[in-house]
Amino acid sequence: MSLDGRIAGPGDDLSFLETVAGDGEDRDFDDFIAGIDALVVGSGTLRWLHGQGHDLPHRGLPIWLVSHDEALAARAAAADPDGTPVTRVEGELAEILDGIAAAGHARAWIGGGGDIAGQALAADRVDEVILTIAPTVLGAGPAVFDHPALEPRRFALAECREYGKGSVRLRWMRDRAQQATSFGR
Amino acid sequence: MSLDGRIAGPGDDLSFLETVAGDGEDRDFDDFIAGIDALVVGSGTLRWLHGQGHDLPHRGLPIWLVSHDEALAARAAAADPDGTPVTRVEGELAEILDGIAAAGHARAWIGGGGDIAGQALAADRVDEVILTIAPTVLGAGPAVFDHPALEPRRFALAECREYGKGSVRLRWMRDRAQQATSFGR
Repeated sequence: MSLDGRIAGPGDDLSFLETVAGDGEDRDFDDFIAGIDALVVGSGTLRWLHGQGHDLPHRGLPIWLVSHDEALAARAAAADPDGTPVTRVEGELAEILDGIAAAGHARAWIGGGGDIAGQALAADRVDEVILTIAPTVLGAGPAVFDHPALEPRRFALAECREYGKGSVRLRWMRDRAQQATSFGR
Repeated sequence: MSLDGRIAGPGDDLSFLETVAGDGEDRDFDDFIAGIDALVVGSGTLRWLHGQGHDLPHRGLPIWLVSHDEALAARAAAADPDGTPVTRVEGELAEILDGIAAAGHARAWIGGGGDIAGQALAADRVDEVILTIAPTVLGAGPAVFDHPALEPRRFALAECREYGKGSVRLRWMRDRAQQATSFGR
């Protein structure tokens, strides 16, 4: 996200990501992906990827696409018939996550957007948040979590360091022992 | 701000600030204030403080109130006649900041809200951003910088550490050598 908590600028502009200089962090994303079993992604994020010329968010990782759009799912499913199964789902995100677990996937990556991440958090199914903060302010654009009626959720800080050259990596683990009701609610 | 970049929850709820446990950071705010000459604050932030029973954001520090509301300014000016001058201003924030400098104040604290901070950044008059990140996700609420047409602004990371117990302190300095136009614009 940007310094001010945006995952994109106006018009879904992601060019700010170029300000994250990952010197010496080349294997960081590979290491992350190696620990992931499935990817959950919303239609807006997938459509954005298509507009950028990418047919899939990541090859070889089973994708659950949260969307009513069958044509979008068909396009994604046709992109890599050898290795990337695409499952279109809709409805309550908690049930979708139950389905992913029932399919034998222990660690799902909520790949966005902020609305899907917000729904996962509202269902209290987010165990870990890994944030990379770019050294750039955008001033407008969608947030990393977006939900109109989310009970505040507490996390425990697991990692806090400079990432690459001049960005920040934060990692937070969900702290269910700290009830939101413990602070003034 | 919250983990997801909000400076308040829905309804300007600031109770998430209680999740910042400042163990051993007792002098942090005093040290900050000692280096500040003036405070710039918007009407929304001051009205919020009044609603919480606070007449001024901080006593003894000259306040520039960016507001059309003369009654609001009069109430603030009457709060501490001995030591806290209140100057009501309106118009372009760049000119307001020029006026503060002309009054002999070298370091002004942009105390909020996000719209005032966004205007200061649009005028490229923000030299330093000090962020404390609470271990809490809110999902909705205003952002730390809010401006509809801000050219992305680059910063250099000056501080990155755990703050108190389980929060994060980031400090960024404006990096004017890194033009926004250097990344895809």
